[in-house]
Amino acid sequence: MIIIGEKINSTVKNVAEAIKNEDYNFIVSLAEKQAKAGAHYIDVNAGAFVDLEAEILKKMVQSIQSKVDTPLSIDSPRPEVISEVMKVYKGQRAIFNSVIYEQGILNRALPVIKEYNMKVVALLMEDSGIPEDPKGRLEIAKRLVDRFDKEGILLEDIFLDPMVQPVSVDKRYVDIALETIRLLRNEFENVNIICGLSNISFGLPKRRWINRAFLPIAIYFGLNSCIADPLDEVLMKLIYASETLSGQDEFCMEYITKAREGFLD
Amino acid sequence: MIIIGEKINSTVKNVAEAIKNEDYNFIVSLAEKQAKAGAHYIDVNAGAFVDLEAEILKKMVQSIQSKVDTPLSIDSPRPEVISEVMKVYKGQRAIFNSVIYEQGILNRALPVIKEYNMKVVALLMEDSGIPEDPKGRLEIAKRLVDRFDKEGILLEDIFLDPMVQPVSVDKRYVDIALETIRLLRNEFENVNIICGLSNISFGLPKRRWINRAFLPIAIYFGLNSCIADPLDEVLMKLIYASETLSGQDEFCMEYITKAREGFLD
Repeated sequence: MIIIGEKINSTVKNVAEAIKNEDYNFIVSLAEKQAKAGAHYIDVNAGAFVDLEAEILKKMVQSIQSKVDTPLSIDSPRPEVISEVMKVYKGQRAIFNSVIYEQGILNRALPVIKEYNMKVVALLMEDSGIPEDPKGRLEIAKRLVDRFDKEGILLEDIFLDPMVQPVSVDKRYVDIALETIRLLRNEFENVNIICGLSNISFGLPKRRWINRAFLPIAIYFGLNSCIADPLDEVLMKLIYASETLSGQDEFCMEYITKAREGFLD
Repeated sequence: MIIIGEKINSTVKNVAEAIKNEDYNFIVSLAEKQAKAGAHYIDVNAGAFVDLEAEILKKMVQSIQSKVDTPLSIDSPRPEVISEVMKVYKGQRAIFNSVIYEQGILNRALPVIKEYNMKVVALLMEDSGIPEDPKGRLEIAKRLVDRFDKEGILLEDIFLDPMVQPVSVDKRYVDIALETIRLLRNEFENVNIICGLSNISFGLPKRRWINRAFLPIAIYFGLNSCIADPLDEVLMKLIYASETLSGQDEFCMEYITKAREGFLD
């Protein structure tokens, strides 16, 4: 399971405050905590500050990379912003988060992805919106993967996002998300399937329990990555157990190792 | 979700000790705690004391029923023992736990089930063992339900047990159990599908995390009952979240109510 730590997001109040106060120590501490908790990437998002997005992201990246080695996921819908940020980025390969299948955006995103040898999160939606039918999302995925392939991007560097929508809006959204994951996993053995975990619980109270119950099911259907809170210990323990249940953990060895290390107490 | 509290089981050390010491207050306290935690039934098992099984179960039932109203699940492979115990049973309808499709046992169990108007757990196995193929288990289920129907037992009083086997022995056992649940739910809308939750984690350390991750997946596939530990608060919270994700909680109202009551904190 590839975990992208979600906590450095400018739409969250304490992060927005830290940015306003230029308290980059706080941002760094969030990165350190997430790295320590087992995040494989740390997401950085400054989308709430539209005009200053690139500038703030650069400061975030430089502050974090002065202290933390974990690679980053640069989170912006604007390829130009990500391009600007990557000029100061160093270290292990970053994730371009995210691109959608819209010719204008794709055409501007691909040179950035290639210039900086980035991995990429691609959302299974188009200009016209998110298809209701999982097969429609699969079709977008096929076109995306085909285009990435033509550009020389490897399957294992692609993260497809099936677009999980809130169960509070429509209970069928759970089935649609899971069926999309199943279709994607059937079609692409080696592509990564990712989701923004907390999308499922939007609009509900005590969202963590919904996120925690959803993840084992999604992992069973083929999810192998998520943008989530690595400081949620219950969630992290459930992930190890879910991998064991999903046949990804040969002879349960990783689970047994984690138990021995005291991680599952 | 119908939860049968598993804690009064003579194969567990402290319960065996209490039985040996005739400390029925301890048994009653286990029943009280489980009832308070939300168990819909409380299982009573004295199988470790073969020769005294009926006698001990009677004492358990009488002790518990002097203090607790929650109905009981009488847990024995021997119809004669359950028949003996039911002579002292009072209150809400009990569960006959369990019967297998073996003519001798079924023929002796059915009169007891009918005389005492019991609900019944039926294991999807035969004399020859547990079929590897989920379809084989479905076939046993069809024959069982047909026989129960002929005897006038209602679908909603039947609990079919798909026979969950340990992931530590074979990772395919997870898929087999879930596929059996799916087939059963497709075939029988109104029958209960139950499992002994901890069977999945047999042989592994820190078994609770495996149980906790398995339950949301099993509920999504159609499980609506389990024999489990209602004192496991993480598990109980995951159950509420899983019901919401599985479309069993219209407009998420039960989840929202539980959140308001502070149960999901």
